[in-house]
Amino acid sequence: MNIPISIYEAVIKRAFEEDFCFADITTDNLIPENQISNAVFMAKQDGVLCGIEIALHTLKMLDPDIVIEVLKKDGDKLEQSDIVARVQGKTRALLKGERTALNLLQHMSGVATATNAAVCEIAGTDAFITDTRKTLPGLRALEKYAVTVGGGRNHRFSLSDAVMIKDNHIDAVGSITAAVENVRCRVGHTVKIEVEVRTLDEAREAVSAKADIIMLDNMKIPEMKKAVEVIGGAAIVEASGGIKAGILKEVAQTGVNVISIGAITHSVKALDISMKIF
Amino acid sequence: MNIPISIYEAVIKRAFEEDFCFADITTDNLIPENQISNAVFMAKQDGVLCGIEIALHTLKMLDPDIVIEVLKKDGDKLEQSDIVARVQGKTRALLKGERTALNLLQHMSGVATATNAAVCEIAGTDAFITDTRKTLPGLRALEKYAVTVGGGRNHRFSLSDAVMIKDNHIDAVGSITAAVENVRCRVGHTVKIEVEVRTLDEAREAVSAKADIIMLDNMKIPEMKKAVEVIGGAAIVEASGGIKAGILKEVAQTGVNVISIGAITHSVKALDISMKIF
Amino acid sequence: MNIPISIYEAVIKRAFEEDFCFADITTDNLIPENQISNAVFMAKQDGVLCGIEIALHTLKMLDPDIVIEVLKKDGDKLEQSDIVARVQGKTRALLKGERTALNLLQHMSGVATATNAAVCEIAGTDAFITDTRKTLPGLRALEKYAVTVGGGRNHRFSLSDAVMIKDNHIDAVGSITAAVENVRCRVGHTVKIEVEVRTLDEAREAVSAKADIIMLDNMKIPEMKKAVEVIGGAAIVEASGGIKAGILKEVAQTGVNVISIGAITHSVKALDISMKIF
Amino acid sequence: MNIPISIYEAVIKRAFEEDFCFADITTDNLIPENQISNAVFMAKQDGVLCGIEIALHTLKMLDPDIVIEVLKKDGDKLEQSDIVARVQGKTRALLKGERTALNLLQHMSGVATATNAAVCEIAGTDAFITDTRKTLPGLRALEKYAVTVGGGRNHRFSLSDAVMIKDNHIDAVGSITAAVENVRCRVGHTVKIEVEVRTLDEAREAVSAKADIIMLDNMKIPEMKKAVEVIGGAAIVEASGGIKAGILKEVAQTGVNVISIGAITHSVKALDISMKIF
Amino acid sequence: MNIPISIYEAVIKRAFEEDFCFADITTDNLIPENQISNAVFMAKQDGVLCGIEIALHTLKMLDPDIVIEVLKKDGDKLEQSDIVARVQGKTRALLKGERTALNLLQHMSGVATATNAAVCEIAGTDAFITDTRKTLPGLRALEKYAVTVGGGRNHRFSLSDAVMIKDNHIDAVGSITAAVENVRCRVGHTVKIEVEVRTLDEAREAVSAKADIIMLDNMKIPEMKKAVEVIGGAAIVEASGGIKAGILKEVAQTGVNVISIGAITHSVKALDISMKIF
Amino acid sequence: MNIPISIYEAVIKRAFEEDFCFADITTDNLIPENQISNAVFMAKQDGVLCGIEIALHTLKMLDPDIVIEVLKKDGDKLEQSDIVARVQGKTRALLKGERTALNLLQHMSGVATATNAAVCEIAGTDAFITDTRKTLPGLRALEKYAVTVGGGRNHRFSLSDAVMIKDNHIDAVGSITAAVENVRCRVGHTVKIEVEVRTLDEAREAVSAKADIIMLDNMKIPEMKKAVEVIGGAAIVEASGGIKAGILKEVAQTGVNVISIGAITHSVKALDISMKIF
Repeated sequence: MNIPISIYEAVIKRAFEEDFCFADITTDNLIPENQISNAVFMAKQDGVLCGIEIALHTLKMLDPDIVIEVLKKDGDKLEQSDIVARVQGKTRALLKGERTALNLLQHMSGVATATNAAVCEIAGTDAFITDTRKTLPGLRALEKYAVTVGGGRNHRFSLSDAVMIKDNHIDAVGSITAAVENVRCRVGHTVKIEVEVRTLDEAREAVSAKADIIMLDNMKIPEMKKAVEVIGGAAIVEASGGIKAGILKEVAQTGVNVISIGAITHSVKALDISMKIF
Repeated sequence: MNIPISIYEAVIKRAFEEDFCFADITTDNLIPENQISNAVFMAKQDGVLCGIEIALHTLKMLDPDIVIEVLKKDGDKLEQSDIVARVQGKTRALLKGERTALNLLQHMSGVATATNAAVCEIAGTDAFITDTRKTLPGLRALEKYAVTVGGGRNHRFSLSDAVMIKDNHIDAVGSITAAVENVRCRVGHTVKIEVEVRTLDEAREAVSAKADIIMLDNMKIPEMKKAVEVIGGAAIVEASGGIKAGILKEVAQTGVNVISIGAITHSVKALDISMKIF
Repeated sequence: MNIPISIYEAVIKRAFEEDFCFADITTDNLIPENQISNAVFMAKQDGVLCGIEIALHTLKMLDPDIVIEVLKKDGDKLEQSDIVARVQGKTRALLKGERTALNLLQHMSGVATATNAAVCEIAGTDAFITDTRKTLPGLRALEKYAVTVGGGRNHRFSLSDAVMIKDNHIDAVGSITAAVENVRCRVGHTVKIEVEVRTLDEAREAVSAKADIIMLDNMKIPEMKKAVEVIGGAAIVEASGGIKAGILKEVAQTGVNVISIGAITHSVKALDISMKIF
Repeated sequence: MNIPISIYEAVIKRAFEEDFCFADITTDNLIPENQISNAVFMAKQDGVLCGIEIALHTLKMLDPDIVIEVLKKDGDKLEQSDIVARVQGKTRALLKGERTALNLLQHMSGVATATNAAVCEIAGTDAFITDTRKTLPGLRALEKYAVTVGGGRNHRFSLSDAVMIKDNHIDAVGSITAAVENVRCRVGHTVKIEVEVRTLDEAREAVSAKADIIMLDNMKIPEMKKAVEVIGGAAIVEASGGIKAGILKEVAQTGVNVISIGAITHSVKALDISMKIF
Repeated sequence: MNIPISIYEAVIKRAFEEDFCFADITTDNLIPENQISNAVFMAKQDGVLCGIEIALHTLKMLDPDIVIEVLKKDGDKLEQSDIVARVQGKTRALLKGERTALNLLQHMSGVATATNAAVCEIAGTDAFITDTRKTLPGLRALEKYAVTVGGGRNHRFSLSDAVMIKDNHIDAVGSITAAVENVRCRVGHTVKIEVEVRTLDEAREAVSAKADIIMLDNMKIPEMKKAVEVIGGAAIVEASGGIKAGILKEVAQTGVNVISIGAITHSVKALDISMKIF
Repeated sequence: MNIPISIYEAVIKRAFEEDFCFADITTDNLIPENQISNAVFMAKQDGVLCGIEIALHTLKMLDPDIVIEVLKKDGDKLEQSDIVARVQGKTRALLKGERTALNLLQHMSGVATATNAAVCEIAGTDAFITDTRKTLPGLRALEKYAVTVGGGRNHRFSLSDAVMIKDNHIDAVGSITAAVENVRCRVGHTVKIEVEVRTLDEAREAVSAKADIIMLDNMKIPEMKKAVEVIGGAAIVEASGGIKAGILKEVAQTGVNVISIGAITHSVKALDISMKIF
């Protein structure tokens, strides 16, 4: 995990506020305060594990003396019935933390698994998969991390770390050329400039404006191929816009360098991992 | 929208912190500060709208003088190409707020749409659909609201508003009967007691312990039918545990009163709604 | 204590912000940084202890190496001069944390003591005492917990965990019957419906509408008795509205099931517990 | 109101988080979204009004278009049945905000009323009443304000705005004289030094050490009188320690300048003010 | 101002919490609640204005009805006695907000002015000035904005928006080449890779590893010149490390593209701007 | 350090949010997760150390198992090349925390050093140096602490802990005398009253109004001398208003008791302290 504790603890605290509110009226009234239980996290389906440190930290925040044995780490491929971790701690803490821990673990593993499926689909090509800014509010850092765990790479994290020139920006200044030039003399030297194009002519203009990256927005496969030729290595080429599982390899084989996919963060199926307390 | 502004503004602010961080280096450098644009929110696929007030409020937080025309409201069925709302405001605000507004709108509409599909599947039966606590951290209030917009109902919001007795609780006290009795004399009079059962015998014991609700956990259809008979109207019957689209009607026809589904919040496909600025 | 640390630490931090602001200009300038002292928490009057874990955690937040010996626990009856806990830690931490620790401990013990007095007053009857939503802003979770420590039970925690139909709601829909029916088909199955009534006729209507709970609002004793008869066990009966110490038993003997009292949270006398440092 | 909006809005938001959590399941399901109602705030008992601006702002946060007519202002003496304010706004907002508004208004008015009773009790003497740091966590700014509204004055707000030398500080340095001297050459020139004394000898030493304020801790009336003589106007004299209503005048007549009372903030009866919606 | 209100309001609220805490005991006690005053912001020395919108928003948060006339905008060169803005509003609000408004305005203008001095010093060369991550905690967004207002550009905002390979990273992997290659195949395509070098050999290796940017760390002028030659346009060249006013032009004339200076944010003199209320 | 951990952790967390945002894309990709390194904090110039505990805590928040050896403490005079502290911990934590730790340490040491220079300049006189409220937003507690570490004292922390009557207040009430009298009968007994004067006549009036402190605002040296005579020990005398290094001794020799200087907090040069990781 490369996210500092103080950052992800904030996410967990928010989840606690939603889920405890006032009390766990079942557990507080039925489970003795000092009863100890064991629990295992177990995969109920195949996938890529992500978030196990956060999930375990969730439990630790409720029982600082919890004993933890970690068997799988982020990035590991899980098969159904794999044991991911074993813990021993206060039954109350386990029962109260279970849902929050699993909600985080299943979502992050879901992102990693979806990403990995896309990565596998284009295996053997030179392209790589990235995410987008289409993330769930409050969870971007966790989701972007999960994408890397699944073998993808991160597109820009936010509006402040790369320039992305879209049609509205172009309209405001008059041309792709003007937009790239205007922005280049204002942003810092660590910033790359990406231009979104819809036609081969726009691609040509972006190349001559010396864009670092050219994004082919919603192009068909044959058009993509031509765009890659037109650009001829003068810029990194990104394919984007509703590219779905099943056609990823075909897209990759057009010669684009990057395929960015919103669905690996905005339309994720939770990976089924259970926490069995006994 | 029944969620007070001060509550959902906190979600939006968190999203802004993730997405602006320091600046929108593209827009701030290319778009004149006082330029005005129009924008439309348009459905790109069929579904149930949810979150339009929040999405528009997102833009208003960036441009308090924005002019808004709302054409569809939460709960409306959208068809592809339907215009949802029109706005006129500072181009900078529209470009900066677009992603946050859409991330919220698409996710909430995704939840409402998924819920509605389940609701439609059991139309004609007496059962209803509810959510679970399997929500994405930080978004529970919005997701629970979206479930109601989609025609579903809310299961308990948190650990403090209903008793849910699971096997761990039963083991700690010795029996379903003991668990229900212990908890009944401790919780307030506004609280219902739900017991999770796995066999007909457990269902019988829950009935005689006067549980308000009995949850049939991961039962097969024929077993559910028998459980409904055994319970005989003495408690509300909830079917739960990996119940998927396609078999909902069959489940509903067993006579259960409630079907709770985690997937309508934890595994949601964003509904494709665009925001076109021009 | 059933409230997770991360939740009550937030209350303590807020108190620290109010009380330290910038420095403890007396202690920082007079007490050597590493001086160690002992301290005892001692009851100065009889009552029910509540909040000792939070009070001690307050000190621990200022001196993580503090040594703590706990002699009394939440719910214990205190007599004047009882020692509640002994601590040994940095003198500076003890002096800085004293006021915050005591403010929390005295208030929570005050709530528990007031609740317990009410509980004792109705001993021998079948009724029980509950709190209301008349709590001090920012302290509801702690106060609701203290009520249970004092032997009372919790009424609904918030507007989201039970339906409470008041005259304004009835007026909006036309009748008690309409109100109950409308709300029943919208809220989840874990939610009970309470109706506030002022007359016997309203009580009758609430019964026939199948309200789960009927609240007798500001009724006189003889009227309460009649209402209990009218309801005849068909719903839980709650007496509410300015019911004061001294008449609680009489109210309980009318046969109501629940007496809810705002004063046990909104008008509480701090229980006098001192912290002597030496 | 002298507290800036951004400060007290934080208190209100915290109260909203406790009270709404997810939804107002009664009001959201029964009251039409755009229904408008009138409401009046009315005194149900005599007392001093405090917090009306905050209470009304609470409603405004839920309905920005609310129309407000203020009839009484903070500090006004209320008689039973006095109308304090009238509002017209969305019924939903009124119903949702009612409890939070009243919880704040009743507590602040309770503090002002309790303070005022103490102030009246010593009318005709030269002493004045102050509060202490025995305030409810999270509410100090509001309670300290309410004390001034009730005619009292504020003792130090926090550990950083005045020196208060207690026995622990004296023990650490050896003597009152040493303590006062040590602290005087370290704190800023805007800070007064108060010394807590238990005997006449300590009072004498505090005078010769040039303490600005001398607090007579838990002294009997005759001893107080002697202490006042001993001090002879060389320092401000504060009486403190469990001084209760009924003996305040006697205490004031000993010649002390200040009587500080914890009970006006830590043991306050809510002032009964209702909000009637119709 | 390109920073959204909700982001900079958080900074202002934090300042209010520090400066009001409980009350403005001077103003609240002496100035009538509804008294209106005028005020002007006036430059007391020459410099570059920055932060006027934030300063004025500070006052508006205390008096929403304040009337504002803005005469100078961010980036304008100020001469002593220039009027920057005129406001008319509640005297209390002006007095309470003055210090916070000025603390922000003077610091931000100080950053812009220091930056501008550096920018002017290298006028006529092709180099530009950037900031660093040496910013004051909690103020980075405001300081980075002020740098652009002063004519500088922003270096990376945070650890997440550009790769900066230092000796520790190189040591961990074995060589500059290995470090650049390892990181290139992991970070996204929008990220540039900068390598810090201390010798010409390292510069050569960075070039052949295809670093996007090469930072010459603490090099002497003649060495810088040689490094620029060695690099020969194959990468952007950044000079860094204690480069002070007075030698900036000489540094720029070595042919480096970028000079990054920590002092324009970490060692800033407040620009003297007053707020006169009358 | 007299500031409680929970208070300064909030500052550090804010800095982390600015500096990590999402990831340290260099370190996370190049440094093995469990690699351990040593680091030293070393003075690169002479000055007064301040903030070492906070700087080290910053690293501990990223690696709770870090081993720390502290060689210098707050207030120690540093000479160039002095080792301040040695640490051993995870390389990743050291690299990620370095900038935040140094930004805090260098700024706080800068404040302490600037203060100390002023203190030394007036050595041998009876005057002392204080800060003002001209602090950087969000950092007041740390800066005020650093002033004391440098040998200065704190002026009032906020608007709530001392009265400061300025011309606007005087104008509102009519005269210095009226202002002092009005405020004296409203503020608490722990509060001193300071009056800002510009002429000898005003100083005379402030004396006869029994102000506790008289601030000579922007007076010339000879006028200050006369003011000190006029006041004749009847009040503490503070010199204020653009008093710069170089004339401090002359000012002190006029007989004023206090010299308050904004520049020691608002215009501070970071003290150059490095953190070398190896």
